[in-house]
Amino acid sequence: VQVKEPSEGGRWRGCWYERFVQPCLVELLGSALFIFIGCLSVIENGTDPGLLQPALAHGLALGLVIATLGSISGGHFNPAVSLAAMLVGGLHLMMLLPYWTSQLRGGLIGAALAKEPRQVMGAVVAEIILTTLLALAVCMGTINEKTQGPLAPFSIGFSVTVDILAGGAVSGACMNAACAFGPAVVANHWDFHWIYWLGPLLASLLVGVLIRFFIGDGKTRLILKGR
Amino acid sequence: VQVKEPSEGGRWRGCWYERFVQPCLVELLGSALFIFIGCLSVIENGTDPGLLQPALAHGLALGLVIATLGSISGGHFNPAVSLAAMLVGGLHLMMLLPYWTSQLRGGLIGAALAKEPRQVMGAVVAEIILTTLLALAVCMGTINEKTQGPLAPFSIGFSVTVDILAGGAVSGACMNAACAFGPAVVANHWDFHWIYWLGPLLASLLVGVLIRFFIGDGKTRLILKGR
Amino acid sequence: VQVKEPSEGGRWRGCWYERFVQPCLVELLGSALFIFIGCLSVIENGTDPGLLQPALAHGLALGLVIATLGSISGGHFNPAVSLAAMLVGGLHLMMLLPYWTSQLRGGLIGAALAKEPRQVMGAVVAEIILTTLLALAVCMGTINEKTQGPLAPFSIGFSVTVDILAGGAVSGACMNAACAFGPAVVANHWDFHWIYWLGPLLASLLVGVLIRFFIGDGKTRLILKGR
Amino acid sequence: VQVKEPSEGGRWRGCWYERFVQPCLVELLGSALFIFIGCLSVIENGTDPGLLQPALAHGLALGLVIATLGSISGGHFNPAVSLAAMLVGGLHLMMLLPYWTSQLRGGLIGAALAKEPRQVMGAVVAEIILTTLLALAVCMGTINEKTQGPLAPFSIGFSVTVDILAGGAVSGACMNAACAFGPAVVANHWDFHWIYWLGPLLASLLVGVLIRFFIGDGKTRLILKGR
Repeated sequence: VQVKEPSEGGRWRGCWYERFVQPCLVELLGSALFIFIGCLSVIENGTDPGLLQPALAHGLALGLVIATLGSISGGHFNPAVSLAAMLVGGLHLMMLLPYWTSQLRGGLIGAALAKEPRQVMGAVVAEIILTTLLALAVCMGTINEKTQGPLAPFSIGFSVTVDILAGGAVSGACMNAACAFGPAVVANHWDFHWIYWLGPLLASLLVGVLIRFFIGDGKTRLILKGR
Repeated sequence: VQVKEPSEGGRWRGCWYERFVQPCLVELLGSALFIFIGCLSVIENGTDPGLLQPALAHGLALGLVIATLGSISGGHFNPAVSLAAMLVGGLHLMMLLPYWTSQLRGGLIGAALAKEPRQVMGAVVAEIILTTLLALAVCMGTINEKTQGPLAPFSIGFSVTVDILAGGAVSGACMNAACAFGPAVVANHWDFHWIYWLGPLLASLLVGVLIRFFIGDGKTRLILKGR
Repeated sequence: VQVKEPSEGGRWRGCWYERFVQPCLVELLGSALFIFIGCLSVIENGTDPGLLQPALAHGLALGLVIATLGSISGGHFNPAVSLAAMLVGGLHLMMLLPYWTSQLRGGLIGAALAKEPRQVMGAVVAEIILTTLLALAVCMGTINEKTQGPLAPFSIGFSVTVDILAGGAVSGACMNAACAFGPAVVANHWDFHWIYWLGPLLASLLVGVLIRFFIGDGKTRLILKGR
Repeated sequence: VQVKEPSEGGRWRGCWYERFVQPCLVELLGSALFIFIGCLSVIENGTDPGLLQPALAHGLALGLVIATLGSISGGHFNPAVSLAAMLVGGLHLMMLLPYWTSQLRGGLIGAALAKEPRQVMGAVVAEIILTTLLALAVCMGTINEKTQGPLAPFSIGFSVTVDILAGGAVSGACMNAACAFGPAVVANHWDFHWIYWLGPLLASLLVGVLIRFFIGDGKTRLILKGR
């Protein structure tokens, strides 16, 4: 299948883990990332930037999270959307409460992470979370077969856009040692350069664990492969 | 079919309801939503935000409404476009007047709703209409088979973008209890919190009724399944 | 074929008209529209709007013109791009000079139209040209089979975005009688309302003639159907 | 195959040149272009343009570079992403170090080019590099078969958007003789007009050489066709 859409279909194939646990896990993860980006994009700006900046941050973040994780859970990340999906036949009634719980917990985690203190440690934490979103978009959108899709190039690009909108004022939202290294050499300026190596590389390890053990498809995941 | 385009083809299959009534219904609904977003994005801003904000609000709203509803009606939402479509063979002459009437009525409804008084009641109404656009984009773009499509992730994301551009100054354009709940817990701030549960959940019911009884495809719709 | 890309393939099938004349015609038309939008988006703004507005106006205009017309001519609209395409095997050497001539003439027409005097007559002319871009995006992107494509919903949406960026300060860039009618009834304000009926409907006729006689595919075009 | 995704698949077919050398070359080229755009979009603006401009410049530049070059190398352009891709099975361990080296060298080249002195010569250099990005997006996205894809129209459009965001203040970011010629005739203003012919046409030659000798697929490339 070349064009994959976030659909119900896939959820009822595969083992119990992929049918019941993984969708809730993904709703929690996606809600946490989406709401983290949303909160940060509103909190972090002293001068009023109008509505355009939060509008693009929320919209592109939701779009890319759906493009990246939607074929596992349907891509709701919103209790009202899960209710509507259930009413039109796109979600089993039995899954409604687990979805709601996951979404609310995800929202809580996202909002809590966005309150991180703003110091060097805060910059490292921000680089880790922001790069996690980018690396997830790449690994789930282009490598993990169940979630691959034709929109991946711009999902990945938009992960950088929303990361900068959300984290530009916290850590610079570099997420890329090559982006930091080139200008550092040219300007011979190396203060805090280690943050842009440590944060993104820790995020890579986090994404590797997340996909290999929890949200990867049957082929990529190392455990709970079921039947 | 994996990639579906807003085309004439599908309209002439199916029963009379899907061939004659549903396209007009969809042109009315789409025009109302598109023009509601357009009016609100212009009205609601005291300081001059330049042309970028209305340009993106109108353009993305039209794009997502076409991606979401276009395979039912062709996605015109504009009398001049219907005339051009008729001239090049994309709309039967007999349907031109019904389309025009639906579009003008839709425009009237959209403009009237955008004049809602701006109080608590206005915020509830705004949350209902804005969440309706979001839930429609999800249910029609990823669940209802006739209108599914590969652009759905970003159609849904852009529904949040245009909702914030249009309603950010009215109700905050939350449309998501998880987005309101997380920050409310973290800040321990619960004033008007109920609005972001009531509005979106009422919108889910509205979208459920709309799709199950009026604009869903033969498989999703519960009535008028005809032949 | 469901996903159509702007490719060379199609050009060498069909009659001499589709192989030699139509591509040049389309390069002229697309260059004129793209450069009209570009010039207007720069000219029309007193206060400095930064780079974002011209960047989006030019980029989205080029994107939608390529999505809409690219499968006829390759979608260059730029002498340097035609040269590069020729060098890598995407354009016959014999066509390079005709392409260049068409592109330069298109640029001249686009720049000349953007100098239109800014009065009622100017508003009518602006509505005609801006609606032409919108109606072309709909008719070529969703009805004319050779140029249909999966990106059409957002090509059409972006035509509205760039039309507002370019013409918002000239005529309001309404392009849609339904958009003008609803608010006019609600506000009971009818001055110049006729412009938003006359301009867009004349554009529909223009697009109908253009597609039926010049740039439509073999099935849509009424003349020069060749072999 | 109609919809092509940046995947591993293709890399292990074809000769050693396409399996080992070309991916590194492409990572270097893409990183250089991406980081050139990123640096210039931040450096070139005296007044604070907020986060929206760098967010869109970085995000759209990365998206289009992945859409254009991703099916050759996987489209990482970031050491952390290559590490994550390796961990989830999307990159051979043996290629990790070569990828990192290429990305860091690309970043260095991009950052160095962004420091170009800002005079007439700087404008010519800027026009060459900016047009290179545009012509690459066209030639790789619509002509070179291995990297063709359905997102090409908007990849090309976004190359113009990011070119203007990055180079608007340096050279005007014209990249198109037709765009310069029309307004020059209308205004009868010819100063520095030659820059917009010389720069873009030199970029065409550069892109022709790059694709015909280095990054084109087996069918387009003239050398090293191997087995």
